[in-house]
Amino acid sequence: MTVGQQRGEDVDGLGWAIVGASWIAEKFVIPAIRATPRSRVVGVFSSLGERGQAFAAKTGLDLVWTDLQSVLDDELVEAVFVGTLNHLHREQVLAAAAAGKHVLCEKPIALTVADAIEMKDACERAGVVLATNHAFRGQTAIQKMRAMINTGSIGRPLAARTFFGATLSGRFATWRLQDPRNGGVLYDLTVHSVDILRFLLTSNVIEVQATTDNQGLAAEGIEDIVTGTLRFESGTLSNFQDSYTVNHGLRSVEVHGTEGSLSGTGVLDVVPAGEVLLVRNGLPEAVKLGPLEGPFIRSIGDFTKAVRGQGAPTATADDGIRSLQAAMGAKRSARSGQRVLLNESTGDQEL
Amino acid sequence: MTVGQQRGEDVDGLGWAIVGASWIAEKFVIPAIRATPRSRVVGVFSSLGERGQAFAAKTGLDLVWTDLQSVLDDELVEAVFVGTLNHLHREQVLAAAAAGKHVLCEKPIALTVADAIEMKDACERAGVVLATNHAFRGQTAIQKMRAMINTGSIGRPLAARTFFGATLSGRFATWRLQDPRNGGVLYDLTVHSVDILRFLLTSNVIEVQATTDNQGLAAEGIEDIVTGTLRFESGTLSNFQDSYTVNHGLRSVEVHGTEGSLSGTGVLDVVPAGEVLLVRNGLPEAVKLGPLEGPFIRSIGDFTKAVRGQGAPTATADDGIRSLQAAMGAKRSARSGQRVLLNESTGDQEL
Repeated sequence: MTVGQQRGEDVDGLGWAIVGASWIAEKFVIPAIRATPRSRVVGVFSSLGERGQAFAAKTGLDLVWTDLQSVLDDELVEAVFVGTLNHLHREQVLAAAAAGKHVLCEKPIALTVADAIEMKDACERAGVVLATNHAFRGQTAIQKMRAMINTGSIGRPLAARTFFGATLSGRFATWRLQDPRNGGVLYDLTVHSVDILRFLLTSNVIEVQATTDNQGLAAEGIEDIVTGTLRFESGTLSNFQDSYTVNHGLRSVEVHGTEGSLSGTGVLDVVPAGEVLLVRNGLPEAVKLGPLEGPFIRSIGDFTKAVRGQGAPTATADDGIRSLQAAMGAKRSARSGQRVLLNESTGDQEL
Repeated sequence: MTVGQQRGEDVDGLGWAIVGASWIAEKFVIPAIRATPRSRVVGVFSSLGERGQAFAAKTGLDLVWTDLQSVLDDELVEAVFVGTLNHLHREQVLAAAAAGKHVLCEKPIALTVADAIEMKDACERAGVVLATNHAFRGQTAIQKMRAMINTGSIGRPLAARTFFGATLSGRFATWRLQDPRNGGVLYDLTVHSVDILRFLLTSNVIEVQATTDNQGLAAEGIEDIVTGTLRFESGTLSNFQDSYTVNHGLRSVEVHGTEGSLSGTGVLDVVPAGEVLLVRNGLPEAVKLGPLEGPFIRSIGDFTKAVRGQGAPTATADDGIRSLQAAMGAKRSARSGQRVLLNESTGDQEL
C-alpha cells in the first residue's frame, strides 16, 4: 500500500507534481487537488532541498525532487503545477511539454508574449494541456457576474472598472518589490485585472493606455502603482488601478450595462470571498450567491477534466497570453506615453 | 416700495442679473441667491424674449432684458451669473468685465484655455471678481472629504478614482448630445470630475491620458463616454470615467491614502446629496455629515463675500481654467493617442 493510499488518495487519479514550494501551492493548490475527485499530489520539486523538505513536511508529501528532470521522468507524474518565480515558467513549461506532461502554469504565464506563444505551441505539439492559473475566475461571485452578463441582466456592457490594492507584507515583500525581471504590479496584479475583465466581458482588449509610478515601496525602476484604460473589441471602455501602495480600499470589479450595473467587491482574492450588487437606476440590490467556492477548486477541477478530454481549463494558454499582452501593453504605454494597439493575433508587445 | 421689497429682498444687497434662462438658474442659482444674506436677483436676460418672460413668471422676476448691453448698463446690476451655452461665455464675460460687473460663470468657463485666460485677464484688469460655478465643491460630503484629507485622516493621498454617469433626458438631450462646439462629456462632466479631484487633493493635474468613444447616444463625432488617467503634481494617480451612456451605476469619488481610503457616493449632484465612507484595512465606517447643504448655496455665498473683499470664491477663474485644461488635455490625448503634459502655466492645450 502506498502512502497515497494511506491518506485515502485515489492512486489512479491524475498525478500532480508541484513545481516550486510556494505559499500558493501549500495553502491553495494542494488542498484543491486533494479535494478534486480522481486527482492526487505525487510530490514537490524545489531546487532548494531544505525548502522542499520543509514544504513536504507541512503538506504531508513523501516525495521531494531537487532536479526538474527527475520530476519529468517520474511515471506517476502526469501533470505539473508550475508556481515558481515568473522568469522560470518558460523553461519549466517547455521541459514539461517535452516530457509529455500537462501543465497548469501560475500567472503571469511568462515574462514576454513571445515566450508564452512558444510555450503554447510546444504544448500543442506535444499534445498536452497548458492552462494559466488565473484563479480569480473561479470565485463564485465572478462566475455569477459572468453568468448574469451573459444572460443579459445588465444589457449591453458599456463600461467597466477594476480596483486592486494588494498589501504586501513579510514573505511577499521580496521579489515582487525588488526584482526588475519579475517584479512590479503589472506582472502580478494587472494581468489579473485584465483577465477578469476579459472573462466577464467575453472580449479581448484592443487598446491600452497606462500611467505608472514608483511611490516609494518598490525598488527604483519597479512600478508599485498603475492606472490605465482599456478598450475592448466589444466596445466596452474600462479603466483599472492596481497597486501595492494602496492598502485600505476594497478591491472591486464593476461592469456597467445599458440595463443595469454589476458591482463585485472583495472578489479579487485567493480565498472564497466577495459580494455582488446589481444596481438599477441607482438602487443597489444584493445578488444571492449561495455558498462561496474557493477559486482554486475550479482551476484544478476544470484542468483535471480538460486533461481527460472534457471541456476547457478555467483559463487557457491563450487567456494567459492575452492577459499578459494587455499588461505588457500597459507597461509599454506608460513608458512611451502612447496608446498601445494590441494585434488581433497575439503579437509580441514587448518593450 | 419696489417689488423686491415686497418679496422681502434686501434692496441694498448684491444685485444679480441672470444671464441665460437656464434650468440651473431657475432651480438652483436664484433660490441660492435669495437664500443668501445681502444678495438679490434684479432680473433675467434671454435673447429669446418669450423664454425670458416665461422664466421671469416662474421665478417671480419683474425685469426681463433681451439685449446684454441693457443688463450691463443697469446700475442695479453688480454681478452676473452667466449660464448660457458654453460658446457664449467668452463674449458675455468680456462684456461684463468691460462694464465693471462681477461674474460667476457656469462651467466650462470657456471652450478653450486661451479664451478662459483672456476672460480672467480682462476681469483682473477691470477689478471685478470672476469665479467658475464648479458647484459640486459645495456638497457637504465633498467639503467633509476635503477637510478630512487636509487634516491627515487618510495620510498621504496615493490614488483616486471618479465615476460620473449622467442620465440625459428630455431638455438635456439636446445640445449636449448634438452640438459639436459645446457638446460631449468632456466639457460637461470631465471638467467636474477633474475639478473635484483638484479640490480634494489640493493639487493640479500635470499629465492626462484618455480614451473616448461614441456609444451611439450622441451625434457622430461627439464623445458620449470617456475614461482616462490623471497624474497630479502631488504624486497622486487617478482615473476617471464620465459618460452619458451609463445610467445605472452610482456616481462616486474615492481617494486612497497611506492611512485610509475615503469613498463618496452620490456626491456629484446638483441637489444636497451623498454619503461618505472611511475605509481602514478594508473595514468601511460611515462618516457623519450632519445636515446636507446644497452645492449652490456655497457658490453664491462665497462669491458674494468675495465681491465684498472677504475671501475667495468656491472655485476661482484659475480653477475653471485648470479644470478645463485637463479636460481638453483628455480630448487631445484621446484623439492623438498620446499622453498630454499640462504646463505649469495654464497654457493652451487645444487641438
